[in-house]
Amino acid sequence: MIDFYTAGTPNGYKPAIMLEEIGLPYSIHKIDIGKGEQFSPEYVEINPNSKIPAIIDRETGISIFESGAVLIYLAEKTGKLLPTEPAERARVMGWLMFQMASVGPMFGQFGHFRNAAPEKLPYAIERYQKEATRLLKVLEHQLAKTTYMAGDYSIADIATYPWVFGATGPYLEVSLDDCPNVQRWMEVMQARPAVKTGMSLFSPEFDSKLGAIA
Amino acid sequence: MIDFYTAGTPNGYKPAIMLEEIGLPYSIHKIDIGKGEQFSPEYVEINPNSKIPAIIDRETGISIFESGAVLIYLAEKTGKLLPTEPAERARVMGWLMFQMASVGPMFGQFGHFRNAAPEKLPYAIERYQKEATRLLKVLEHQLAKTTYMAGDYSIADIATYPWVFGATGPYLEVSLDDCPNVQRWMEVMQARPAVKTGMSLFSPEFDSKLGAIA
Repeated sequence: MIDFYTAGTPNGYKPAIMLEEIGLPYSIHKIDIGKGEQFSPEYVEINPNSKIPAIIDRETGISIFESGAVLIYLAEKTGKLLPTEPAERARVMGWLMFQMASVGPMFGQFGHFRNAAPEKLPYAIERYQKEATRLLKVLEHQLAKTTYMAGDYSIADIATYPWVFGATGPYLEVSLDDCPNVQRWMEVMQARPAVKTGMSLFSPEFDSKLGAIA
Repeated sequence: MIDFYTAGTPNGYKPAIMLEEIGLPYSIHKIDIGKGEQFSPEYVEINPNSKIPAIIDRETGISIFESGAVLIYLAEKTGKLLPTEPAERARVMGWLMFQMASVGPMFGQFGHFRNAAPEKLPYAIERYQKEATRLLKVLEHQLAKTTYMAGDYSIADIATYPWVFGATGPYLEVSLDDCPNVQRWMEVMQARPAVKTGMSLFSPEFDSKLGAIA
């Protein structure tokens, strides 16, 4: 059993998709970020950086924080979605880090300055809008060559999909008109039952998996 | 032989320290970011995201982009600085991702708004100064319990040290007065010969390792 601590954000959806893909049993614990539950001493024990998601593998007692580390842990535990062959593995790790270090943080800053900052700062909004567009072009260039980001379907796709999905919605209103291959990849991703289920985290169908915070 | 494409930035120092720690022979190729060399078609073949660092392992022909992926690749190739025991490994991956997803991007945004943006935007400067301070407090809290970030010395320390080193200099002028354990860790890190050599990348002593861009 995996205890899964999360919230309804792009990073929070990643382990949900992964857990559905690999078929491990799990229990969801909703962390109310608005109420600051991520700063509670109990949660800081699980994630010292007070962010979601995190997991505890009750089989081994191992607790893992940071969405990228959670994906790698679950992939290595089950031998799924992260190749062991060095060249393929390096590609997956590169594209996973591309999401962790660029797509996530930069889309996140764009969202902050566009939607949440108390003052509208055109320079900052434009800075992150440009960078989000550039990152999508990098993705487009790659997906013109491969079906999935790193060749075969992998944790790199699972990490990136929720962010691109979020970016195209009202949060960032980014257009994919110039990115036909990203559009094609989004459709391929959406057709996966695990992606569909993972992205519907906290909808009523998840109620049976909801647990209390440990 | 490892072909190492880099520049004198915190991300650029990481593989230098790692290569010195593991003792693999390497050749350095300086990418002049100021001149936009990272956008050349030859370099985009190596790093599709036009960032430094990247490496090509000439023994296997594998090319790796993103500093975090480079560190993982070199660790797995040599069996050094990334444990295989699942609990220890998860800790290292968590702290590595903490650097990749938070310390690097947020310190970087702080540097941009503090030093490079054409207009001084107090809101943005304060936002990232606060986040940099919070992240250092997270690190301080951890280093009060462990000698190195994830217990034993690992790629998580190698990833994080160049950023904290840079933050305490004129780039960000962050104070470590309230972080005695980070100070202690910095001293332990600086005492390692591989850290000293890796951080002096592009000083005259490196000349023998300089190669042309492949």
